[in-house]
Amino acid sequence: MPSPRYPHQLRALVAVDCIIFGFDGKELKLLLIHRGFEPERGKWSLMGGFVQSQESLEDAAARILKQLTGLSGVYMEQLRAFGDPDRDPVERTISVAFYALIDIHQYEQQLSDDFKPEWFTLKKIPSLIFDHEAMVEAAKETLRKKAAVQPLLFELLPERFTLPVVQQLYESVYEKEFDKRNFSRKVLSSGLLVRTTDKEKSNSKKGAYYHRLNKRKYRYQTFLNINPA
Amino acid sequence: MPSPRYPHQLRALVAVDCIIFGFDGKELKLLLIHRGFEPERGKWSLMGGFVQSQESLEDAAARILKQLTGLSGVYMEQLRAFGDPDRDPVERTISVAFYALIDIHQYEQQLSDDFKPEWFTLKKIPSLIFDHEAMVEAAKETLRKKAAVQPLLFELLPERFTLPVVQQLYESVYEKEFDKRNFSRKVLSSGLLVRTTDKEKSNSKKGAYYHRLNKRKYRYQTFLNINPA
Repeated sequence: MPSPRYPHQLRALVAVDCIIFGFDGKELKLLLIHRGFEPERGKWSLMGGFVQSQESLEDAAARILKQLTGLSGVYMEQLRAFGDPDRDPVERTISVAFYALIDIHQYEQQLSDDFKPEWFTLKKIPSLIFDHEAMVEAAKETLRKKAAVQPLLFELLPERFTLPVVQQLYESVYEKEFDKRNFSRKVLSSGLLVRTTDKEKSNSKKGAYYHRLNKRKYRYQTFLNINPA
Repeated sequence: MPSPRYPHQLRALVAVDCIIFGFDGKELKLLLIHRGFEPERGKWSLMGGFVQSQESLEDAAARILKQLTGLSGVYMEQLRAFGDPDRDPVERTISVAFYALIDIHQYEQQLSDDFKPEWFTLKKIPSLIFDHEAMVEAAKETLRKKAAVQPLLFELLPERFTLPVVQQLYESVYEKEFDKRNFSRKVLSSGLLVRTTDKEKSNSKKGAYYHRLNKRKYRYQTFLNINPA
């Protein structure tokens, strides 16, 4: 119930929308569902819904993601609020967008089929409802900036991985190709990776060494080397 | 008017709160006002108010900052939404926080006295209403992370400045002291500064050279040197 204190102020619907990026070992993908209610029922959409009266924004995002996709235990970070007056044609709605980056294989079992969630490669995202495309663009931008200053993408990789797989991951986040030799040199010079003695041989005769993350070195790389932590 | 489409969903008040950091050539400060209405009237507060029905979040933030302080033309960036169910004791209110970093002297003339705005050094911020202290902490954290990867703090400096002033600025953002020799070496090795031939002599006999920003070099410093732009 609105209190009498501010009788003439706007009250708006509050929604959350979840932007889930996933990596399947080859490409970066985005999870979308068929929207289950009007308006725009049946169109492709982020996982969204309304915040309840005693629920925090984070709890709402976790509940809605679970309801619509079955996924739980995904750590989502808030992107920002989207509040243009006409972003929802029915009624003024403020939406708070959350995003996460997950290993697709790790969550494969959890994915429920109720709302037909599908993974789309970033290059082939269909038209989305409302301002969801702007949300995805903003999340991609944030992901790129974060990946540029901290090695968060390595969290998507399995325990052991080859350099070509690391390169594919960076190429799908930045949507451009990197020179192979140059890329390997930069990654190795960061000191973040440790080469194991085993090779992956299914993709080339010569094979590619498996590497693992050097967890001690896993930290922010910063301007002026001032550690912000 | 709520539409009949979602009759049972929560409608919340939507507020914006403005976090304005300023640098006066010596210290980083935070602008606060005396809250002008109940609850918590007269307590120290960020500049906040309600979003109107046909207003974007950004427009609301600019309007409210102007109304409460006189400041206009300040570029504010959205921090994030704060939406804990009990953050406002009167009624469920979602607040979207914005922040900016300005040169205090540049805006001195604009500051109006209606709500008694005052600049507080970051070390001596008084108790703030609601969750405003958490907002300030989150904004400081974001500022530190941004300052660590891009030289945005230089925007606060005048055309010419000495290295001790740069160091004071970084020290007030990170709330710690840096070794003088080490700091100068790191700043100069970034290639971002050009030494002029003039010296500032009021603070020491030996004097300190004035420097200016090398605008060509002024760009992101990134992990793996992959430019996120």
